[in-house]
Amino acid sequence: MRRKFAPSTVLTEDEVREVHHLSLRVLSEIGLTFHAESAWDTLEGHGCAVDRSTGNVRFDPAVVEHFVGMSPPDFDIAARDPAKTVHFGGDSIVWGSASSAPNVVDAERGRRPGTGAVLQELIKLGHMLPTCHLFGGHSVEPIDRPPNTRHLDSVFDWITLSDKALRVYGIGETRVDDGLEMIKLGYGIDEDQLRATPHTMSILNVNSPLLVDEPLLLGSLALARRGQATVVSPVAMSGAMSPITASGSLIQHNAESIGVSAYLQMEVPGCHLFYGSLVAAVDMRSGAPAMGVPEAVTGAIAAGQMARFYAMPYRTWLGSTSNTVDAQAAYESMMSIMAAHMGGAHFVHHGHGWMQGGLTTGFEKTMLDADLIEMYDAIKPRIDLSDADEVIEAIREVGAGGHFLGSSHTMSRYQSEFHTPKLSDWRNYEAWAEAGATRVIDRATVAWKELLETYEAPALDVGRRAALVDFVERRKREIGPEDIG
Amino acid sequence: MRRKFAPSTVLTEDEVREVHHLSLRVLSEIGLTFHAESAWDTLEGHGCAVDRSTGNVRFDPAVVEHFVGMSPPDFDIAARDPAKTVHFGGDSIVWGSASSAPNVVDAERGRRPGTGAVLQELIKLGHMLPTCHLFGGHSVEPIDRPPNTRHLDSVFDWITLSDKALRVYGIGETRVDDGLEMIKLGYGIDEDQLRATPHTMSILNVNSPLLVDEPLLLGSLALARRGQATVVSPVAMSGAMSPITASGSLIQHNAESIGVSAYLQMEVPGCHLFYGSLVAAVDMRSGAPAMGVPEAVTGAIAAGQMARFYAMPYRTWLGSTSNTVDAQAAYESMMSIMAAHMGGAHFVHHGHGWMQGGLTTGFEKTMLDADLIEMYDAIKPRIDLSDADEVIEAIREVGAGGHFLGSSHTMSRYQSEFHTPKLSDWRNYEAWAEAGATRVIDRATVAWKELLETYEAPALDVGRRAALVDFVERRKREIGPEDIG
Repeated sequence: MRRKFAPSTVLTEDEVREVHHLSLRVLSEIGLTFHAESAWDTLEGHGCAVDRSTGNVRFDPAVVEHFVGMSPPDFDIAARDPAKTVHFGGDSIVWGSASSAPNVVDAERGRRPGTGAVLQELIKLGHMLPTCHLFGGHSVEPIDRPPNTRHLDSVFDWITLSDKALRVYGIGETRVDDGLEMIKLGYGIDEDQLRATPHTMSILNVNSPLLVDEPLLLGSLALARRGQATVVSPVAMSGAMSPITASGSLIQHNAESIGVSAYLQMEVPGCHLFYGSLVAAVDMRSGAPAMGVPEAVTGAIAAGQMARFYAMPYRTWLGSTSNTVDAQAAYESMMSIMAAHMGGAHFVHHGHGWMQGGLTTGFEKTMLDADLIEMYDAIKPRIDLSDADEVIEAIREVGAGGHFLGSSHTMSRYQSEFHTPKLSDWRNYEAWAEAGATRVIDRATVAWKELLETYEAPALDVGRRAALVDFVERRKREIGPEDIG
Repeated sequence: MRRKFAPSTVLTEDEVREVHHLSLRVLSEIGLTFHAESAWDTLEGHGCAVDRSTGNVRFDPAVVEHFVGMSPPDFDIAARDPAKTVHFGGDSIVWGSASSAPNVVDAERGRRPGTGAVLQELIKLGHMLPTCHLFGGHSVEPIDRPPNTRHLDSVFDWITLSDKALRVYGIGETRVDDGLEMIKLGYGIDEDQLRATPHTMSILNVNSPLLVDEPLLLGSLALARRGQATVVSPVAMSGAMSPITASGSLIQHNAESIGVSAYLQMEVPGCHLFYGSLVAAVDMRSGAPAMGVPEAVTGAIAAGQMARFYAMPYRTWLGSTSNTVDAQAAYESMMSIMAAHMGGAHFVHHGHGWMQGGLTTGFEKTMLDADLIEMYDAIKPRIDLSDADEVIEAIREVGAGGHFLGSSHTMSRYQSEFHTPKLSDWRNYEAWAEAGATRVIDRATVAWKELLETYEAPALDVGRRAALVDFVERRKREIGPEDIG
């Protein structure tokens, strides 16, 4: 998919530079705290002041500027099916699955904790949905699978149930190494091919404010060293994890993003990084997050301007706090989709099904989001005037007070001219009432069940599948009950 | 309210000129049909070829260009309360009430035909809602009021129940003259003051394709001759009332708009006209209109470019086909709101409550639309960096891994920093479920009932009120059972 219109702006070019310099002030005067001893020598070697009692790292601004500029401005992430390889950069937008929700909900079976079986259903849905381009993690956490080997079953599911691009689990080196081996086996590629272009990525959430934890850092470095990508994502819940103002959240968020990116580039110069952003508000009465709100749109536009300043691919998100699939779910998703388009996003994480503040992935919400993504995409960024002569003949033919329903200009185009949202019911009230007075949530239930019924697993070479099965069995034996962090 | 970002474009400047010239071809080669004998002499006097057997009028392109340029580029419509006078032009956006729906619905009383009593309730709601700036007509048709004197009761209700700007009934001269007399009596102004600036307007719907009916034309001229405004509004239901393609609907729509505008300017040079637009798609399976769809966004952006080309204030609309206040109602309204902002609209007709393809106005939908209009408006078009030093101190104070909830930077701003949508429920699932698992439609019912309970009629001089009462009584006697067309 492509962005339709030029990104919006909420900062002048001078203000973009001002935010950059304010962020450098945060990095040099206050610093980030790396709860990651393994990073300290490198940081110190590049002129940072490291306090080894706390992990506080104050950066030299010139060094940050030098390293943050090393990220490639655009790149691919290869899928098992090369036709489904995704590109990040320019006006391309890649929409991901939901990720990391502990719960799942659908209208028939209710709300419950995630399992491996329901994760497989959501992978099948994502495979069937043309708007879902990449599996960005566990759409629901499969909590019935042991944590120490869960990554093996998940990567097996992603590779065998779909041929779209995927994110491996980026917590620690073991999971990353296992994921990359499985990609090689499942995609039928060797180490050189794996390294030639990114085949996967991780999400490196900064523990905002200012805190960087070791397991995600080690996972990202393990990926970077083998040519894979990382999304550096501060979490700016304004008023809680970052300052309450748009300016404050932006300055902190940008400092965290470029500080961590600079460190990763020190370790692996030229590694593939995204400028990640998750700006949300917080309900000041309850402390609950507020997603799909105006502040998130403003924040996403601003962060997009910073990403373009650093010439890095830009990641946003599709957030919703709604507890059911009603008008709130729709307007929060729509605001998030607008934010992605207006901000110039290249990757939209959590793009399908997130609700309840990210604690739940919904089947009906997945279908709604897919429909909304397609609806925005169907806004035409240009009007084609090439049928003008034919139009004038059609107007002449129909004449004053006539109608165009049967005109040849209409008849030759009526099947393809308009976008048809799958969940909309355009019937008049009487026909709609007679047919059961359904709401979008009801029609979405029918839609996901139909889609699952039509699911067919993409072809996978039997030898490669067998190799994956063997690998998972062997690694489960090797890992056993061990805690791998 | 103000538009936040520069309007989008779907046509190059050359293409805007091309659409203009293609529209002139339609007007000169095919022409419009004026079912309005009263217009023929004037049109002929300005070089148009008038076929007096059919009413077909073919225009001289140079004459159209001459007259269409006479509209003022921006103007006010004065309200009874001068503080509520609305401005059309620049980056101002005025949101209207719904208009012309035969039915009304709310969750407590169900769907039913409109009455005078429920129209009064909707006027009270509109008066209370800060997003509703103008009464654009009957939010519901009060069908229990006799058609020949209905306009008297309605204008009485608008003037006495609110002090916001209003549209008089523009069908025929009698209704217009009555409406203007009532505005003079109710606003306490004389004829000179009335004429000095527009105090009301009419909507002149073109009977697309290409047909212009006499009653609306006479109403508009009666208004124009006394300094009032008219919205010239072709209806481009693409595939039914206009060609199915975006190009075709635009060319026809633009031809109708500038042809009718040119005629009105021939009669009353310099009269106040809006470039009106209502672009929708049609469900090709059923012929039902499709509103709040991507095609309507593309069409609204294109029509906005044409309006700016002619330097006329621009009117769009907020359409929805949804039969209930569910996700569809929200995404169709949101697409319409986006279309208004992206198209650079100055007036959004049907801005509150329209649903079911315009056949019904909903109380809950009114509250939803008001919330969505505010939500889009709360997207900040600029980030204020003036608190940067304070931000850096807050980040220093909170430190790595802390939180900002209690910081002084947060505490001094937490009550006003974030926009709070009235219908959103941000509570976590458990708290939401315990509180009754409400949906937006449920919360909207509570909201409109609360708003009606807090309604207070705006002050109105007793003498003026008595004059209005007298006028309505006298005119009812005079009109009697007469059909006034």
